[in-house]
Amino acid sequence: MKTDILIIGGGPAGVVAAITAKKHYPLKDVSLIRKEEKSVIPCGIPYIFNRLDSVEKNIMPDQPLIDNRINLVIQEVIEIKPAQKKVILKNKEVFDYDKLILALGSAPESISIIGEEKKGVWLVKKELDYLQKLREAVLMAKDAVIIGGGFIGVEFAEELSRIKDLNVTLVERLNNCLATNFDQEFALAAEEVLKNKGIKIFTGQTVKKIGGEEKAEYLELASGEKIKADLIILSIGARPNISLLRKAGIKIEEMGGAIIDECQRTSLPDIFAAGDCAQARDFITGKKCNIMLASVAATEARIAASNLYQIEVINESKGMIGVFSTSLNGLVFGAAGLIEKRAQEEKVDYIIGEAEALNRHPGNLPGAGKIKVKLIFAKSSGNLLLGGEIIGPESAMEMLNIIAMAIQQKASIFDFNSWQIATHPLLTSAPTVYPLIAAAQNALLKIKK
Amino acid sequence: MKTDILIIGGGPAGVVAAITAKKHYPLKDVSLIRKEEKSVIPCGIPYIFNRLDSVEKNIMPDQPLIDNRINLVIQEVIEIKPAQKKVILKNKEVFDYDKLILALGSAPESISIIGEEKKGVWLVKKELDYLQKLREAVLMAKDAVIIGGGFIGVEFAEELSRIKDLNVTLVERLNNCLATNFDQEFALAAEEVLKNKGIKIFTGQTVKKIGGEEKAEYLELASGEKIKADLIILSIGARPNISLLRKAGIKIEEMGGAIIDECQRTSLPDIFAAGDCAQARDFITGKKCNIMLASVAATEARIAASNLYQIEVINESKGMIGVFSTSLNGLVFGAAGLIEKRAQEEKVDYIIGEAEALNRHPGNLPGAGKIKVKLIFAKSSGNLLLGGEIIGPESAMEMLNIIAMAIQQKASIFDFNSWQIATHPLLTSAPTVYPLIAAAQNALLKIKK
Repeated sequence: MKTDILIIGGGPAGVVAAITAKKHYPLKDVSLIRKEEKSVIPCGIPYIFNRLDSVEKNIMPDQPLIDNRINLVIQEVIEIKPAQKKVILKNKEVFDYDKLILALGSAPESISIIGEEKKGVWLVKKELDYLQKLREAVLMAKDAVIIGGGFIGVEFAEELSRIKDLNVTLVERLNNCLATNFDQEFALAAEEVLKNKGIKIFTGQTVKKIGGEEKAEYLELASGEKIKADLIILSIGARPNISLLRKAGIKIEEMGGAIIDECQRTSLPDIFAAGDCAQARDFITGKKCNIMLASVAATEARIAASNLYQIEVINESKGMIGVFSTSLNGLVFGAAGLIEKRAQEEKVDYIIGEAEALNRHPGNLPGAGKIKVKLIFAKSSGNLLLGGEIIGPESAMEMLNIIAMAIQQKASIFDFNSWQIATHPLLTSAPTVYPLIAAAQNALLKIKK
Repeated sequence: MKTDILIIGGGPAGVVAAITAKKHYPLKDVSLIRKEEKSVIPCGIPYIFNRLDSVEKNIMPDQPLIDNRINLVIQEVIEIKPAQKKVILKNKEVFDYDKLILALGSAPESISIIGEEKKGVWLVKKELDYLQKLREAVLMAKDAVIIGGGFIGVEFAEELSRIKDLNVTLVERLNNCLATNFDQEFALAAEEVLKNKGIKIFTGQTVKKIGGEEKAEYLELASGEKIKADLIILSIGARPNISLLRKAGIKIEEMGGAIIDECQRTSLPDIFAAGDCAQARDFITGKKCNIMLASVAATEARIAASNLYQIEVINESKGMIGVFSTSLNGLVFGAAGLIEKRAQEEKVDYIIGEAEALNRHPGNLPGAGKIKVKLIFAKSSGNLLLGGEIIGPESAMEMLNIIAMAIQQKASIFDFNSWQIATHPLLTSAPTVYPLIAAAQNALLKIKK
């Protein structure tokens, strides 16, 4: 087989890369190879247990690929031969390519826990069959324990708490759930929501072993405490799928992921990488990092696919800021860019601006709820916005994207002062207290002091 | 009486000016004079008939003024004497000021319609007593006709359509409702929502007269058609309150509103103006305009109040873009900056980018609805974003503010290409189809052609 542009991987990075490539180069042949018959929506996985009534409802439609005349091949790639510009499939077939985009994604991390091989212990794999079995197991379980209180962990816990007669426990090694992405006051607010849903939370606790005979029966913490468990889910992170890259001789960053340039080009000619299998660069420190987010994957895929034959759409991003969000019992928790904790670790000179307001005006209109915002600006360096955190009802989600965009567009405290922001009684805070502006004003007054 | 900083007007501009001034100059005495005992929330007025169960629920709380130690004076100002730096109140008292901020607002426009003096004909005044009487009249009415299909008109029509046994008709002079602020496809979608609520709409129709004896009984259109009406509401626009300014010798723009500089300073020393009584400048053409919006008023008030004694917080805005939004039967309609129709009138060289997507992924998650976006970029001039329109469920509101902010931060099509935007299954479109990015991509491909 032969194609002009070949994409390996059917996740968000792969799909965006394929469609973008076809749109930019309509006369080229674009092919996408993935090993899964059906491709699961990664971030929808937590919702297959209750809010979606089957795993099949969480499938990425292939229609956009078909509509864009992408040649879809269901096969596993076992080797890339960069010198010959060939890819070898498991069924022995060979694919010739002109340009190759690697969107190989990541797989769940596993720590070595004593007893992790027992029945009833699960990972969060992006595989339809596996997830169908996991769903059945969850619906049969009595005592579920989730190990790892990052985004996937808290979302699993919240979803599982909606299942009648299922006890849900969450165990986190750090002092708070979501502690990597939120300052403590926001993390505590998230824990509060989870506790109100009846979830038992253990933080600052490491795991000693999974006990039981053939089947998991309990989880033992380092503290000695034992938690009854007939179902244990490990959600302790992910690592990039790099074995194919390594075998092909593509340079890899120590922490994992292909080393790429500003246009997502790897160390080998005509091979690009995007998404979880590619490294990223932190926008504040410039340090190499690997933020595994569908939004980052999609951005990288757009950059790669629009620059395959020459640099046409320069990457204007100064690095990946990381925009994280979740919804817990209807409340949005979001963070973009730098948080205060990390500002201290990285020794950034900063000013905080905070504000709270109802998302309706007057506040007795239907659907009113409180929005809480914390913004972090550079104290010197033009007082640029570096990051922000938000809690609030649904509209807080896109307010997070305003923060994200403002960071990327290098907005300063002074820009916020002259911003015009639409407000509406039924949908937003009053113009007098709109929280993003109010938080920036709060920070502005600190500069003047 | 004597004060350092005096604000006249208790609407959004006045309140923001007072609080901002006190925060920037905590040692100064700040006073706010307004004539109303209680201050109505302007944009909440349409909702006093059904969603709020009384006008009292639509009052701006005075607590923020009290909390910020603003001296609140309920009195009417009858004259400003700039040479003596004095203000004369209706009760003959005199107020000495050091700095004066005029936030006098606007009043409803009235066209001269034959029969407008009849009982049953109402304006949309921002006065508590008047609105209480209007509310009673609405709840007693059988056939309500609203003249003027701008934002206030459509919001009144939609709210009134929620009242049982009340027939609601909307009459608009232009070819569509909301035609000043939206391109036709968006305006038609808004009309569709209103029609589905049972509202009868006449567009492209001028009014001949209001018929009836002492009381309004019908509205006669120029076409000769008569519409039964025992209640008629005129919502045909507003004009700035400028009589005090004119008397004081402050220079006024022909189209109304005080002439101001970048820091909201009027033509007279130590007198600032903000909100509907101050002119604004269009961000595309630089032409003088008067966008009457609470968000613009709040922005102008912040700029004025932070620069009273010296220019401290330079106005970074290149003009007022105008960000308009409404919610009709749960659907958000929003527009920011330039729309296509106006681009043609103003002879702007532009490119359109369009996209549609569900606001959930997968789309079978609860609360899913379609978001439709239209962006307008400069075809040359760095391909900067100039405007955008949006329709969609609740989250479309803050997406409108992303558009607004992107215009103000001079984002280009290429910036959109590398933007990282948070997505979440329960709250947004998939990262592969997020509509703001997708619309920009759509425009990007047109440049390459």
